[in-house]
Amino acid sequence: MAQAKPSLIVPNPLAEGLTRQVVGVDHFGAQISLNVVEERPLTIWLNGQEIVTAMTIGDYPEYLAQGFLSNQGMLSKEEIVEAIHFDAELQTVVVRTNSPTNYEAKLKKKTRTSGCAVGTVFGDIMEGIDGLRLPKSTIHTSWLYSLARQINQMPSLYLSAGAIHGTVLCAQDQPLVYMEDVGRHNAVDKVAGWMRASQTLGANKILYTTGRLTSEMVIKCALMGVPVLASRSGFTAWGVELAHQVGLTLIGRMRGQRFQCLAGDERLVYDAVPSSEDEDRIHRRKSAQ
Amino acid sequence: MAQAKPSLIVPNPLAEGLTRQVVGVDHFGAQISLNVVEERPLTIWLNGQEIVTAMTIGDYPEYLAQGFLSNQGMLSKEEIVEAIHFDAELQTVVVRTNSPTNYEAKLKKKTRTSGCAVGTVFGDIMEGIDGLRLPKSTIHTSWLYSLARQINQMPSLYLSAGAIHGTVLCAQDQPLVYMEDVGRHNAVDKVAGWMRASQTLGANKILYTTGRLTSEMVIKCALMGVPVLASRSGFTAWGVELAHQVGLTLIGRMRGQRFQCLAGDERLVYDAVPSSEDEDRIHRRKSAQ
Repeated sequence: MAQAKPSLIVPNPLAEGLTRQVVGVDHFGAQISLNVVEERPLTIWLNGQEIVTAMTIGDYPEYLAQGFLSNQGMLSKEEIVEAIHFDAELQTVVVRTNSPTNYEAKLKKKTRTSGCAVGTVFGDIMEGIDGLRLPKSTIHTSWLYSLARQINQMPSLYLSAGAIHGTVLCAQDQPLVYMEDVGRHNAVDKVAGWMRASQTLGANKILYTTGRLTSEMVIKCALMGVPVLASRSGFTAWGVELAHQVGLTLIGRMRGQRFQCLAGDERLVYDAVPSSEDEDRIHRRKSAQ
Repeated sequence: MAQAKPSLIVPNPLAEGLTRQVVGVDHFGAQISLNVVEERPLTIWLNGQEIVTAMTIGDYPEYLAQGFLSNQGMLSKEEIVEAIHFDAELQTVVVRTNSPTNYEAKLKKKTRTSGCAVGTVFGDIMEGIDGLRLPKSTIHTSWLYSLARQINQMPSLYLSAGAIHGTVLCAQDQPLVYMEDVGRHNAVDKVAGWMRASQTLGANKILYTTGRLTSEMVIKCALMGVPVLASRSGFTAWGVELAHQVGLTLIGRMRGQRFQCLAGDERLVYDAVPSSEDEDRIHRRKSAQ
């Protein structure tokens, strides 16, 4: 069995403030004590504009803020982030650019006319993937099996406390950055924030998520420039449709050596012969229950 | 084994427009065809105000809109809904009250001062549960086991297509309303909309969800007046904290005849002796993967 290779960022299930011991009772009425993940509000600001309050586990607030704003189309690649200020007490994070962003201008215009710009955000996001075509790349099925095995075995908040989603940015068969959060969108936004901050390109990467392959996940992955999105979970029809539109390889229901690919299968190279052993039970562990 | 009792509303996995056949390949590269759940944008309006675009499977848009607005504190119990208009082509649903709501006034005031009122919503929701105490009630553990068994066996989109969450409103050991949606918050909002429309009280009910027991789920359940929230999935620490605050019984990780109760265990009556049989494998089915 392949050993987990060194990664740039991996979960630290022992980090302070990410979990808490909570007491309760079990089905017999006997007292129990459980390790439970934290969940806190974090309000994200873009310059002088309050944007959203996200519920997050609380690690990497700077990556979460940058990634959220990028993936919502509020912060373009061209914009230069001058400073990011996280205030743990106020539970806020402010992203400052060197000049006002397009989004702030749009927001001001919209609020002048019909009261609130939230509704435009959805339209903006769809616009963001308009005409976008992800680059060609190759994925060996052996990488997928190796990644699933490594990710399942890596220490994580999921294994120690459960009720959490994970997203892993991978290069070939190597996990690079593994983020966890109470919402799968936060975990993927934190990866996006790390990519923006470290100027890492998505072109030759694979994004692995424990969450379902919905339109939101496909859009985020496409905006991050990552041409492959893989998950243990299932699909939605619109997720599949958008994947076809942007040329994304969408792989779901990865269990043991089985998977289903509903878009972009031209990238797949079948270099591993799926064994008939049922690894399903061993690899059933990581889903966000 | 108890037979599923008649319910008011149950999933119809064969209903038109909820799933679609999608073609792809499996891990051998062989062509497959899968039944995949739909996901569509639905824009919710309150009178003349656009509120949000939700991603939904598309059934019961009227319940979703009413339930969402109620659970967000935008539509109070006192407000009278005069009309709800769903436009399938425009994918919009407009909820009309007989006079402007407090929320619209608040939104106007906020947009005059700092641009957008989204950020205030979070504060409003927390305010909504301030001082709220859920009524006393009793839950027999035998009901919980019976409900889990019935819900697992009921025909559903989950069983036919996967990648979907379910929320079930129950009275003692009887499922009453079973809603499914791509987001667990939508499923619970649809139940809330049904409760509002049918003037059903939450006081003597149990809410069952396939999703995790986060702060959002606890707040929604509390605002619906339902004193018991049960799930197959796990907890977040803030979910537990809020459950204590409002006096909600929070039961998680229901598997076979096991569960964990991290708040409000004084409601529990242990009238069933948990069998030593491992039903875990049989009942592992319904989670949103």
